[in-house]
Amino acid sequence: MEKHPFDIALDLLPMAPGVYSGATTASYRNMIGPFGGVTAATALNAVLQHPALMGQPISLTVNYAGPLAAGAFKVTATPRRTNRSTQHWVIELTQEDKDGVDEAMLTGTAVTGTRRPTWSGDDSALPSVPRPDDLPESSPISAVEWINRYDMRFIEGKFPTHWDGSGKTSLSQLWMRDRPPRPLDFCSLASMADIFFPRVYLRRALPVPVGTVSMTVYFHADGAQLTQSGTGFLLGQARAQAFRNGFFDQTAQLWSEAGLLLATTHQIVYFKE
Amino acid sequence: MEKHPFDIALDLLPMAPGVYSGATTASYRNMIGPFGGVTAATALNAVLQHPALMGQPISLTVNYAGPLAAGAFKVTATPRRTNRSTQHWVIELTQEDKDGVDEAMLTGTAVTGTRRPTWSGDDSALPSVPRPDDLPESSPISAVEWINRYDMRFIEGKFPTHWDGSGKTSLSQLWMRDRPPRPLDFCSLASMADIFFPRVYLRRALPVPVGTVSMTVYFHADGAQLTQSGTGFLLGQARAQAFRNGFFDQTAQLWSEAGLLLATTHQIVYFKE
Repeated sequence: MEKHPFDIALDLLPMAPGVYSGATTASYRNMIGPFGGVTAATALNAVLQHPALMGQPISLTVNYAGPLAAGAFKVTATPRRTNRSTQHWVIELTQEDKDGVDEAMLTGTAVTGTRRPTWSGDDSALPSVPRPDDLPESSPISAVEWINRYDMRFIEGKFPTHWDGSGKTSLSQLWMRDRPPRPLDFCSLASMADIFFPRVYLRRALPVPVGTVSMTVYFHADGAQLTQSGTGFLLGQARAQAFRNGFFDQTAQLWSEAGLLLATTHQIVYFKE
Repeated sequence: MEKHPFDIALDLLPMAPGVYSGATTASYRNMIGPFGGVTAATALNAVLQHPALMGQPISLTVNYAGPLAAGAFKVTATPRRTNRSTQHWVIELTQEDKDGVDEAMLTGTAVTGTRRPTWSGDDSALPSVPRPDDLPESSPISAVEWINRYDMRFIEGKFPTHWDGSGKTSLSQLWMRDRPPRPLDFCSLASMADIFFPRVYLRRALPVPVGTVSMTVYFHADGAQLTQSGTGFLLGQARAQAFRNGFFDQTAQLWSEAGLLLATTHQIVYFKE
């Protein structure tokens, strides 16, 4: 069977415990550098590949320090503290500059943990929306390559087609899954947390320069619940809370097709104008 | 003039560039270790005291690796990359264990940045609530010392008084400020981001064991806007989105008394039962 493009993008070669080499792939190319979701997933993958890993992902924060150049990179994941229920990770992704010096392209932290059965409840229910099968598949014809790697079926707040400054809302709702379909796991969930296009595009209907500065993902599901989600769609919902002098935030939820809240995520994005 | 207890708690003594020593204070004691808000503010303060600092806080993530023992600690803030508009920081707070070895008590990252005037807008408006002067001052009589350091005036979702499992909602709204009043700055804003008591207490009306694992704060205001807020109250609003097998999230907003969204914040919290 042919290897899925997401698995190719995530491939890491161990160089030492917690130190891995990887490389960007054309399949997830963004306007400048690779899609940030895949870079976040790569950072998480370094944690998940570590021989000392305890538990499953609970939280992940990545800070995008600079756009990755096409080619090789190094990822380091270091467990700084292991408790009974949680393990604390520091992550860094670097590339060599022209003088061969490692330059930080991403800094981050993660917490993994042991989940034990407790009382559970979702306070944020799946919105009432059409089912993915009732919506058309998106066409894989974008000039921005990573967008073709996902089937995105918008319900609300689709990518503006008229850049006329007429935007009023920052809310998007869409069904999404890997294209071709791939069983959901923690890395693909982390990647999809970054699928929402910049809220400022929608809010203003203007294509201003942007770049994500920092993203955090909280994982509410365990591996078994992700496996249950399989190759089904996820419902994503995102909106902004504030745009102010060069930076705005995005706050988002990702539910399984069955309605389980799998992850909540936040990011802060740089913008101009 | 007597030094404010918050400034005493935040005091850092430089040992080397980016390396500081500090100490816990009884004024912000929590049930186990100090109030997490003050620890987050201390981490941010290490960044703000750094001689190489560029810009103002944009985002802060702190991961609570272990409860601080009463006494001395060391904070390290390292600028890993400085761009034209943003600077990326890695933070660590350690205490010596019984063998004199530094043990990680907190890991974190921050991004500082230069703010330039852009189009701005709040998508999350101050809720319609009574003004702080129309609500009674909270009594500084808690056995948990840090709670006495804030005047908290609840509108919705106050701390449960009957632990009878009758909870239905995770939403709290309250006016808050330092007690005694202290002009708002980035550190006190970071601290107040952690003021919301665990949502599981409210949602279940049950006092189960809890501990914050990770908190992220996005700063939407610059220093001048914080100065304008002065010693006024902030409106805080917090709710949970999911409780699942040992962990739940909190998502919150902090507005100035004049209605400006100053910060948005998120945390993931460990709980039992």
